[in-house]
Amino acid sequence: MANGAQAMLRTLINAGVNVCFTNPGTSEMHFVAALDGAPQMRAVLTLFEGVATGAADGYARMADKPASTLLHLGCGLGNGLANLHNARKGRVPIVNIVGDHATYHTQYDAQLQSDIETAARNVSSWVRTAQSTQALCQDVVEAVAAAKGPQGQVATLILPADVSWSDGAEALPAPPAAQPPRADDAVIDQIASVLKAGGKNALLLGGRALREPALLDAARIAAQSGARLYAEVFPTRMERGAGLPHVERIAYLAEMASVQLAGIENLILVDARSPVSFFAYPGKKSDLVPEGCKVHQLVLPTQDAVGSLNSLCQRMGAGPATPVLQQALRPGRPRGKLTAPKVCKAIGHLLPENAIIVDEAQTSGTMLPMFTAGAPRHDVLALTGGAIGYGLPAAVGAAVACPERKVLALVGDGSAMYTLQALWTMAREKLNVVSVIFNNGSYGILNVELERVGAEKAGPKAKSQLDLKNPGLDFVQLAQGMGVPAVRATTAEQFNTALERALATPGPHLIEAVVPSVFSGLKLRVLPYVLRSLESLPQPVAHAIKRKVAP
Amino acid sequence: MANGAQAMLRTLINAGVNVCFTNPGTSEMHFVAALDGAPQMRAVLTLFEGVATGAADGYARMADKPASTLLHLGCGLGNGLANLHNARKGRVPIVNIVGDHATYHTQYDAQLQSDIETAARNVSSWVRTAQSTQALCQDVVEAVAAAKGPQGQVATLILPADVSWSDGAEALPAPPAAQPPRADDAVIDQIASVLKAGGKNALLLGGRALREPALLDAARIAAQSGARLYAEVFPTRMERGAGLPHVERIAYLAEMASVQLAGIENLILVDARSPVSFFAYPGKKSDLVPEGCKVHQLVLPTQDAVGSLNSLCQRMGAGPATPVLQQALRPGRPRGKLTAPKVCKAIGHLLPENAIIVDEAQTSGTMLPMFTAGAPRHDVLALTGGAIGYGLPAAVGAAVACPERKVLALVGDGSAMYTLQALWTMAREKLNVVSVIFNNGSYGILNVELERVGAEKAGPKAKSQLDLKNPGLDFVQLAQGMGVPAVRATTAEQFNTALERALATPGPHLIEAVVPSVFSGLKLRVLPYVLRSLESLPQPVAHAIKRKVAP
Repeated sequence: MANGAQAMLRTLINAGVNVCFTNPGTSEMHFVAALDGAPQMRAVLTLFEGVATGAADGYARMADKPASTLLHLGCGLGNGLANLHNARKGRVPIVNIVGDHATYHTQYDAQLQSDIETAARNVSSWVRTAQSTQALCQDVVEAVAAAKGPQGQVATLILPADVSWSDGAEALPAPPAAQPPRADDAVIDQIASVLKAGGKNALLLGGRALREPALLDAARIAAQSGARLYAEVFPTRMERGAGLPHVERIAYLAEMASVQLAGIENLILVDARSPVSFFAYPGKKSDLVPEGCKVHQLVLPTQDAVGSLNSLCQRMGAGPATPVLQQALRPGRPRGKLTAPKVCKAIGHLLPENAIIVDEAQTSGTMLPMFTAGAPRHDVLALTGGAIGYGLPAAVGAAVACPERKVLALVGDGSAMYTLQALWTMAREKLNVVSVIFNNGSYGILNVELERVGAEKAGPKAKSQLDLKNPGLDFVQLAQGMGVPAVRATTAEQFNTALERALATPGPHLIEAVVPSVFSGLKLRVLPYVLRSLESLPQPVAHAIKRKVAP
Repeated sequence: MANGAQAMLRTLINAGVNVCFTNPGTSEMHFVAALDGAPQMRAVLTLFEGVATGAADGYARMADKPASTLLHLGCGLGNGLANLHNARKGRVPIVNIVGDHATYHTQYDAQLQSDIETAARNVSSWVRTAQSTQALCQDVVEAVAAAKGPQGQVATLILPADVSWSDGAEALPAPPAAQPPRADDAVIDQIASVLKAGGKNALLLGGRALREPALLDAARIAAQSGARLYAEVFPTRMERGAGLPHVERIAYLAEMASVQLAGIENLILVDARSPVSFFAYPGKKSDLVPEGCKVHQLVLPTQDAVGSLNSLCQRMGAGPATPVLQQALRPGRPRGKLTAPKVCKAIGHLLPENAIIVDEAQTSGTMLPMFTAGAPRHDVLALTGGAIGYGLPAAVGAAVACPERKVLALVGDGSAMYTLQALWTMAREKLNVVSVIFNNGSYGILNVELERVGAEKAGPKAKSQLDLKNPGLDFVQLAQGMGVPAVRATTAEQFNTALERALATPGPHLIEAVVPSVFSGLKLRVLPYVLRSLESLPQPVAHAIKRKVAP
């Protein structure tokens, strides 16, 4: 017989949850005290709950199973909400353990009392407050099952302190894994006939469809039917690089996305949602599906996307088709004054085998997909929910999940400041993360957005709201203050050297890349800018990219 | 005729809201663009929403009127929830402006879409999503009125982008201020007779009752009736120091609070809530009211506490009574190796006239009330909701509200790391804030709590969850990285000098006070420790304090 916390930890471990990203308080002290009796549970302390939740997200994307978090009441959960939102939008499994006051204490409405269930519901498909120590392990089993599937989701189990500290709990074994069904034959048949009929068709891949083996099935279907392949604008996890099919991501800017999708007659969604504009803009359409284009959905959220895509591939007789694969190609070594595109180029030049790129580079990362298209095979994790402050925490989680791989966190200066505390956890856990902070001294994306929403007449007071130069942020000092070795690069040569050294040395590193804003003064001349930049690229890659932005 | 954002800004200014703490995104760009046309609105950019909300809280506590925030959709609000929780618990007025997608865009469930109203409801008594540009200014008027009273609260107005950018809004004048009624005569009579009857009675003061003129009325009542005066454990704003009545705060540790309250027969709540334990502990009572003590409530939350206390004072004929006031007394200059009590002593020794102390020092601040009791008159802002990460943001707001006063933010190392981004705003706005970070390399309070909840058998894995030493945090580098001059002190002499210099030089400063944990290895021998430390104090102050902890 064990107390609630002890049995809960064993039940989590039985269910395969053996990493917990924590920021505990008093109400979680029994969970903490039980950790020494649970050697299979790795507890990773964070200094802020948004780091814990973002790390749990990055971990699950790479480990293909949930981690748990340990959060302190409603306020701790509140601090973690933004990254839980990203997980929810990315359909990433997470099991939140949120400590609460003892059941008999809530009546007093003490200082930290709040409505945790309501706060949790916004981001969690499954929410429960444990009612008794005896039933706690069944709650845990159900929470893990909810998180795991049929699609990944956030499950939040609220743990009152007395349920945790009382005796009388018994650990439970792992629940049986549910296998979701494939799509209905009728749906597969209908989509197969649409694709066979030819015309300008495309598959929009999301979720599991952006990874092997689904990615190859999609490429076989494309090779046989002539359909194009697109990826969601912000994929949860995308496998790409030399030897894999090259899949274009839908552009963030609706202006570019509409060029990509122009003329498509049938859009087949594979574990993806129909494309919409990230924000609304005065006088512009929110729905990015072109006029007259029919949208088809291969799988329901509760169905097996990978299996269904394989069924479609078989049904079309595309199994023997030869998928078009990206050839190995790296850009050259950049030189001269550092710019954001040169940072992306250097990353393409130096990216190690099997790297994990966490992409929160915003405007500075515009050129990244292009320069890394032919780099060695790698995974990209993107900002699924648009809530910034994701990159550094997710890198923590990815590195915990894959200690043998190099993680590159590419993060804008504005974004980095939301959850910079992640650096401390990188240092503490000696994680193999190279954080590249693009320091352009501004919320670069907002300079673009200020124009896009039609607010061009902004004066100096408005512009100062987007400005991070006064005072400038010194990311080298900030990183060193949390125990992460850091250097600043203002030339491409410095950046190349810094990146080579960081990749060659275990443990965390930070490189502050001092760059000008990509879009400053450009007044939305985005397309020409991108097109111009393509000239210096290796041609086969450039070709793939030109297709992305030219009609 | 103006667009929604422009008219909204004018309406806010008309209602006296002329500071906005911001962290905007795309959906807020029209509000940002309208700022240049609203010179009476000061827009203070923060790098994280928890800084914006904490600053709005600190501002309102000192300015006695709300600031607004400007937050980016549900995720931005989520990041600000913890400090909004503190504001809610402290009954502090705040007007949140939360941008949202355009009304017609929400149907697409884009990446940043979430249920903002639900997230807001947890912390806001008043929540509304603006439905039209025409009605927007009326929404603003009602939001400000809700925030202002009869007791301060958080009002959240959700502003869809198209409501903001469309034309057709007209600014509205300030709403008339409502004057809340005093307590019923019957209640005042009844409490007056209880007090007149004598016995061991006490007034527990909270909210407005901890400031002049209520504080003096309370002291007159105490002088006449022999009742004791207590303050809430975490006051929203407390005026204290030489020349004001000395009011004991109820202790955070229930073990100490029960000593303070032992034997009280009648407890009169004046704008305060009945005292309860912060957390529940196995086998301990949550309700701190002693057995047999009767609790009386002078005012309802909707009534005028200051006026009602004055009525009680008159009713008792205590108007001519001479209140007991704290005499001017400072502790000596500390010497030798720095400890947390010595930091508190140095602050008592050097505190300037009319300072504002934001107290989030946790265990390290245990001695602060004692050492500052006879210091020059000052205000103390405390952690009303227990959600840490409050101190530095609140200091930003207090300094914006009171540019002519010195603000001291006393913050534990663990607490500081939640919202450290506040330092950047201090530098940007050149605020007169001296931040003192107690770096004891641990979540010191949790070492105490781990024992208090009965989890004594914690092993090294559990203890490492409370440890911030591996790697140590370098707050000097962290501060300098955000543009705040900083020094480290390891001796009392260094600390004295650093504090003197910081107080003598305008703009923000940070002092990292490297100190041992106050309670390390003490195993809850809290009371003897406090009592022992009193020996070195100036006696009149020590006398007041001894009454606090001795039966």
